[in-house]
Amino acid sequence: MAIPADTFFLDPDSDRTLQQQIQQCVTEAILSGRFSPGERMPSTRRLAEHLGIARITVTIAYTELVANDYLVSRGRSGYFISENAPLPPAFPENKVEAAGPVDWSRAIGRRFSGYAPLIRPPDWRSYAYPFIYGQADSRLFDHQNWRLCALQALGQKDFEALTSDYYEQDDPRLVEYILRHILPRRGIAARPEEILITMGSQNALWTAAQILLTQRRTAAHENPCYPGLREILAQTRCNTVSIDVDAGGLPPEALPGGIDVVFTTPSHHCPTNATMPLDRRKALLERAVEEGFVIVEDDYEFEIAFAKSPSPALKSLDRSGSVIYTGSFSKSLFPGLRLGYLVAPAPVIVEARALRALVLRHPPGHIQRTAAYFLSLGHYEAQIGRMGRAYRQRRAVMERCLRENGLTLAVRETSGGSSYWMRAPEGVNTTQLAERLRADGVLIEPGRAFFGPGRASDRYYRLAYSSIAADRIPEGIARLARAIEAG
Amino acid sequence: MAIPADTFFLDPDSDRTLQQQIQQCVTEAILSGRFSPGERMPSTRRLAEHLGIARITVTIAYTELVANDYLVSRGRSGYFISENAPLPPAFPENKVEAAGPVDWSRAIGRRFSGYAPLIRPPDWRSYAYPFIYGQADSRLFDHQNWRLCALQALGQKDFEALTSDYYEQDDPRLVEYILRHILPRRGIAARPEEILITMGSQNALWTAAQILLTQRRTAAHENPCYPGLREILAQTRCNTVSIDVDAGGLPPEALPGGIDVVFTTPSHHCPTNATMPLDRRKALLERAVEEGFVIVEDDYEFEIAFAKSPSPALKSLDRSGSVIYTGSFSKSLFPGLRLGYLVAPAPVIVEARALRALVLRHPPGHIQRTAAYFLSLGHYEAQIGRMGRAYRQRRAVMERCLRENGLTLAVRETSGGSSYWMRAPEGVNTTQLAERLRADGVLIEPGRAFFGPGRASDRYYRLAYSSIAADRIPEGIARLARAIEAG
Repeated sequence: MAIPADTFFLDPDSDRTLQQQIQQCVTEAILSGRFSPGERMPSTRRLAEHLGIARITVTIAYTELVANDYLVSRGRSGYFISENAPLPPAFPENKVEAAGPVDWSRAIGRRFSGYAPLIRPPDWRSYAYPFIYGQADSRLFDHQNWRLCALQALGQKDFEALTSDYYEQDDPRLVEYILRHILPRRGIAARPEEILITMGSQNALWTAAQILLTQRRTAAHENPCYPGLREILAQTRCNTVSIDVDAGGLPPEALPGGIDVVFTTPSHHCPTNATMPLDRRKALLERAVEEGFVIVEDDYEFEIAFAKSPSPALKSLDRSGSVIYTGSFSKSLFPGLRLGYLVAPAPVIVEARALRALVLRHPPGHIQRTAAYFLSLGHYEAQIGRMGRAYRQRRAVMERCLRENGLTLAVRETSGGSSYWMRAPEGVNTTQLAERLRADGVLIEPGRAFFGPGRASDRYYRLAYSSIAADRIPEGIARLARAIEAG
Repeated sequence: MAIPADTFFLDPDSDRTLQQQIQQCVTEAILSGRFSPGERMPSTRRLAEHLGIARITVTIAYTELVANDYLVSRGRSGYFISENAPLPPAFPENKVEAAGPVDWSRAIGRRFSGYAPLIRPPDWRSYAYPFIYGQADSRLFDHQNWRLCALQALGQKDFEALTSDYYEQDDPRLVEYILRHILPRRGIAARPEEILITMGSQNALWTAAQILLTQRRTAAHENPCYPGLREILAQTRCNTVSIDVDAGGLPPEALPGGIDVVFTTPSHHCPTNATMPLDRRKALLERAVEEGFVIVEDDYEFEIAFAKSPSPALKSLDRSGSVIYTGSFSKSLFPGLRLGYLVAPAPVIVEARALRALVLRHPPGHIQRTAAYFLSLGHYEAQIGRMGRAYRQRRAVMERCLRENGLTLAVRETSGGSSYWMRAPEGVNTTQLAERLRADGVLIEPGRAFFGPGRASDRYYRLAYSSIAADRIPEGIARLARAIEAG
């Protein structure tokens, strides 16, 4: 039987090539049973005519399908569906009856869905004034060099190593670069047995919490703080103590006794961007030594620093080995990469590595190797430099516009980061404000999610400048000011 | 000051290009403070002479370094270290005193390192006769098309989407392909809200266990079984019941009452490869409905089936929604990819998605999109076909050699998989046997790790043929037989 050319369609909106669309038509039709082994395909001439495309495109698609054994070529007779083509399944698909006997409200032993993660609209790029946080600005990313590094990591030489199950290991090249070039920038000297590659800093914090906390332990965290951390702590069922921050971040003297672990963001407090001054850092470390607690330092955004000499990490002052450090490539490369690292004394890394193996084995090899190339060829440093220049420019525009529009920064002195923590006038509910602004093309982040239950304030909001071009800032801030004015 | 060319070295054993090595020399020297802003680089001619390479290579490396702002070009005066080049850190590195005050034996609240994962020698490729399981055979993988798909996924069009934080979402294209093409092969109809992309099947099993099990619940698992599963169950602190399998896999009648979750591998029992017959599948599902327990079906290797009509998944027979299904691309693509999927009723997926967001947010976007392209262009089907042909050939050689050498299969009738479960003569300790064989270039897997504590048998071992070429099999089996003979 001959397959009519009319059964083929091209999708004008597809982002696949014409050749790929033809291949896909054929493979889908075979797998769904519409085309059967032995059936004759339309001739390349006929199909090209029908689709209104070059015959060579059809020929190339057919050749590829022959190579993959979907089609066979019988010389002048043309192309046929291969006898070796995969068969559609011979058995009927399962149908679950509407009211199954499993009572999932009982069968589910632990729930994780109670939290309300910070989710920005997935179509944020379509908003004219996206003051949203934590997304990559693709205009600033060196996509071309990333692509070249990925290609190199896909070469035959690397491929064998990258396709393997790494078991518990990391890519030694990525580890080496972080140890030799990134951690020294933060004043941290670490050995290979003191670092673990993680799936971003969320995964690093989660891992540290799993190892350090139980129902009988107590963790202190900053208030406000990264909502993901509050969820992680809740899931461990430990006791938590919430410490209000001020313009210098976490005040160590506010920590009660009996703490086991302190989670802190000294470089740029999340979300206020406050930088912890040196005397507080020393006082915090001293208390850790005296009381034997562990500090987890989340240095998630250290690359974005505007001060002349960025302050070193808390861990760099740590002479007692009390600090567990987490870093991330989400801000300096891009968040979809999902790569970060945990730096800790070797006994902690042993447990973290075992936990990682249990949960997911290891981060994908190809991603690790691509990042290792990108870093070691100097593109990471260049990337940080480019982002720093762009952010500095945006920051200057932001400061001018905020001042001119009479908007109030909640924390004045900040030395880095990619956002401002703002306080609205009394009586303004920023959750509602954000809703109204969204209809006006402006995305801001209401602050409520950063506060613990019962301590929420509706007056605060975050304005990030990491994803908005400098020339969009003035109008965006003007709209924000008008919306606040309008109450 | 001029930087002498003599400070540059090439590593003849490096797998980086000459150009990359030059770039790396410069960036490392800048970051470590050896080269300072304003210093003059050796001329391209001088450096090319010193290194004995083409001048154009040096010129290209310098041009790239200029583009990344490590160097500036001042026309005829030559190249200089840029004033914008990153500075080495101004602060000293931390030094942890040998005896820190943190007592990690106390500070670590939960340990995960007690388990002994199945780790094969990382240099297994250098063994002549690697009968090891679960690693990719790169000779069978369509590396060229994978590379093309990765390139496409790295294109500008996809890049924006892929660099973003996906929050809780998956790549819709990958989900669509699995729903439309992979699950139907297993007789499974599922909707998008019933699937979650995981970091391989280890991660899928771990996720299911976290949601379904608590200290007050009881899980049944097969004995012997995948050691990773036993570790996952131990970590949840649930009660466990170990059920001995026979030539038909798990006997449902052996399950005691009071079970909450049954973990099973019906397609190819791990590690024996036994296939569960239809009547047992029906009996297992009936008991699940009667007693209200949940079944977690690990279909980790379904693509590798040699029977004329592979048996559908247990889930395809499930009319009650009692089965949670896990699949993996580790065997059909490669294990370093770390991609798998969990198929379950929507309330379970809601919890699994929230847990994933808590632990790691989402699997990297680029990996998901590359796999989606590879699958949708038909390469996955072609890959499975190619692997099937190669494995069938190896299987025939294995069966002949095992027979000729008088070696004993522990389970005779198997319909698929990529290994044999073997029984050594009484008195042979296969852990010691594996050690001796390793010195002889032969890698086998002793069976002890698959059995629970107190139920271990030292007589069993696994022989996989997924990573050994057919022509190596006869000599490998001969060496194995001689080693067993020698006792």
